[in-house]
Amino acid sequence: MKKVFIGDLKVGQEYDLYCWVASKRVYKNIIFITLYDSTGTIQGIANIDECQKFSELSKITNESAIKLFGNVILHENKKQFNIIDYEVCALATMKLSPSPNENNFNVFDHKHAHQVIEHPTFYIRNRKLSTVYYLKSCFKREMQNYFWNNGFVEFEAPTLTKQTLYKDSGALWLDVQHQRVSLSRCATFHLEPAIIPYEKIFTITNSHADERVRTNRHLIEYLHLKAEICWINLEELIEFAGKMYYDIAYNTYINNKEKFHEIVSEKIMQEKLKKLDPQNHVHITYDEAVKILKDNNIEFEYGKSLTTKQEKLITKHFNENFVWVKYIPYTVEGFMFKRNSDNSFLTQTCDLIAPHGFGEILGCAEKMTDYDEVIESMKEKDKFQDFDRYKDYALLHQYGLPFHGGIGMGIERALRYLLNLDHVKYTKPFAVIKGSGINH
Amino acid sequence: MKKVFIGDLKVGQEYDLYCWVASKRVYKNIIFITLYDSTGTIQGIANIDECQKFSELSKITNESAIKLFGNVILHENKKQFNIIDYEVCALATMKLSPSPNENNFNVFDHKHAHQVIEHPTFYIRNRKLSTVYYLKSCFKREMQNYFWNNGFVEFEAPTLTKQTLYKDSGALWLDVQHQRVSLSRCATFHLEPAIIPYEKIFTITNSHADERVRTNRHLIEYLHLKAEICWINLEELIEFAGKMYYDIAYNTYINNKEKFHEIVSEKIMQEKLKKLDPQNHVHITYDEAVKILKDNNIEFEYGKSLTTKQEKLITKHFNENFVWVKYIPYTVEGFMFKRNSDNSFLTQTCDLIAPHGFGEILGCAEKMTDYDEVIESMKEKDKFQDFDRYKDYALLHQYGLPFHGGIGMGIERALRYLLNLDHVKYTKPFAVIKGSGINH
Repeated sequence: MKKVFIGDLKVGQEYDLYCWVASKRVYKNIIFITLYDSTGTIQGIANIDECQKFSELSKITNESAIKLFGNVILHENKKQFNIIDYEVCALATMKLSPSPNENNFNVFDHKHAHQVIEHPTFYIRNRKLSTVYYLKSCFKREMQNYFWNNGFVEFEAPTLTKQTLYKDSGALWLDVQHQRVSLSRCATFHLEPAIIPYEKIFTITNSHADERVRTNRHLIEYLHLKAEICWINLEELIEFAGKMYYDIAYNTYINNKEKFHEIVSEKIMQEKLKKLDPQNHVHITYDEAVKILKDNNIEFEYGKSLTTKQEKLITKHFNENFVWVKYIPYTVEGFMFKRNSDNSFLTQTCDLIAPHGFGEILGCAEKMTDYDEVIESMKEKDKFQDFDRYKDYALLHQYGLPFHGGIGMGIERALRYLLNLDHVKYTKPFAVIKGSGINH
Repeated sequence: MKKVFIGDLKVGQEYDLYCWVASKRVYKNIIFITLYDSTGTIQGIANIDECQKFSELSKITNESAIKLFGNVILHENKKQFNIIDYEVCALATMKLSPSPNENNFNVFDHKHAHQVIEHPTFYIRNRKLSTVYYLKSCFKREMQNYFWNNGFVEFEAPTLTKQTLYKDSGALWLDVQHQRVSLSRCATFHLEPAIIPYEKIFTITNSHADERVRTNRHLIEYLHLKAEICWINLEELIEFAGKMYYDIAYNTYINNKEKFHEIVSEKIMQEKLKKLDPQNHVHITYDEAVKILKDNNIEFEYGKSLTTKQEKLITKHFNENFVWVKYIPYTVEGFMFKRNSDNSFLTQTCDLIAPHGFGEILGCAEKMTDYDEVIESMKEKDKFQDFDRYKDYALLHQYGLPFHGGIGMGIERALRYLLNLDHVKYTKPFAVIKGSGINH
């Protein structure tokens, strides 16, 4: 097992170092190689007088894995690895352009998007992309810490289910045990029964949607946080969810400042966190949002969801702050979402919209508890004809299910806002987006 | 939001308590109700003289959610909740037999298996089942802690993939973006490229197999730990994996002793942990295992996997200890598993078999690094005809992939051993097993 890492190298010491070649510059008497491993990068130098196999080394290809022998020196206040000898561990013989870690290659440049996203097997090693995935992993870790520390239990929701939150056509389907099942898009059907033994639960799963739209915030497979809490109302859900996103983002940043700054500047991060502070959130209703659109002469059909463009206009209207939009119409929500007692066209829900076009990131909803209401809503939403598929879930409403509510967050979207990225596809290794090939 | 929990109740105090009815016994002047919430159970008592709505309360159904007003008293050294008033929050009107938390109902009894496994929506609230899932959640948490503390990064593997480790017929298939993709059974295709930026990674995913067999350790959807480590050989993998399982199990037990003892006695737990200690593991080769079978007059075709029955015989032969079986034939392993240099019929792999019929729980494998070897092996394993599906993965072996290896563990199996359960189906809420209906 490897014992020596670039991040731990000390000046004046000799080492055997296993690492990779990011890029190199070869001169007559000296070679400069940017070396990397999981802990960072270091400049390697080989002098013709000191380095055995100098001429072989001058031909080493980018992305080859090598074992070096040498010592660490200080040059202009920076550590360098003075290469005395080397062995090839795994030579990179394939031609790949651009090479994942070559100088001046910007992995987020649109012109490389096709190559990068369709060949993740090679590009996930890119330093910026691997930093993004690393920070996602830290974000998920802080999320787990947050929920455990707040008395939640992680409950395991299944991937395979017969139940769909929206239309069946929005799900991916397959045959299992001679039964038609879908890949879960929302764990609500499985979390709601589990609030009875646990009261406060969360789950982080790969959810799936057969997306018809092609935007910069839709993935076919996405990482989905769902939390479900018993004995809670909408106002409490909003308060909890806003604080949760802020605290998790803040903790992830504080514990990984340097990594963050490889992707986004300190100044922008400070601004983003300030906006994310629930004290600075704006609270409006769906009806107020619609009025703002009308006042701006936007045509809008009452009862529809806001488009990304419309969300952008709303947050701009409020000085580019986060905006909570409350009481979304039942027409665009799941059948079990509780209706507003004053206006049954609206639901007890609230979505959080990020500014600058980052759009909806999370949503909260009270759920129905009354069996007859559930049945009525299933009829309105064309679910009743498939009653058998929903039977146990419906009957749960006759079996001790008290008032409760849930939170859902798209983790790629939450991270895209924080890291100021163009598209959610850069936050998911092996991403599948509408219209892309699957080469993995 | 609920503030008062059963686990926090103090003698002499008055409370409003939200909870559920597990079961009740009604006498002329007194009612005994077993109450539960996420923190535990308490005996509730209602006296006809003290309790308002005594006669209504006498009709309360099992599993109803209620709000109680009353005070906590001490009776024979145990806390009781003296009920003065109550409200119904969600009445259980559905008839369900057995009621999930009624007295003398053993959820693990074979005669209830069909009812319990096919209707998880109602039975996951059973106290024993919900304790098993809770402990699984803790086990997963300790696993995450263990890997993070040992310098690993959690890397996100996709659910959707074109690549299959074994035969295509053993996977579940669906259409995504007009392409045929499977539900991942093993993350190796996606973890191997990621060892280049991270060197040590792990992932915990729902994996899927279209199981043909119906045993007590196969699920169609199962929770799968995969770890992949760069610059490691088989002996080091075995050492790491054995210590990992032991340490995670030990930490989970030490931090949740009381919960464990609801499922399995302290004596049995001590025995199990002792056997799990790597010091007590037995190490043999596949060839030695085959010899033991032959010596016991078992017919066995060289090159096949050991059956559960054969594994049981092997561990019995070694005094019911954990047994590592090294160098499994390539005929039953994935095409990228490295061959043994002395005998290319065998691979650089090792499986850990638990005693008493709990069977194989985890496996380690060195992976191939040479492109030509990979291609040769794909041809032998009938994968080469679908080369396009594996192209990027194959070419990775021409792009700086050094020696490395992986560990895979079935979390349901690991937990089933610890909790001494009959069948893995009891460790997975919403389990799907061969031959069962899917009602969720």
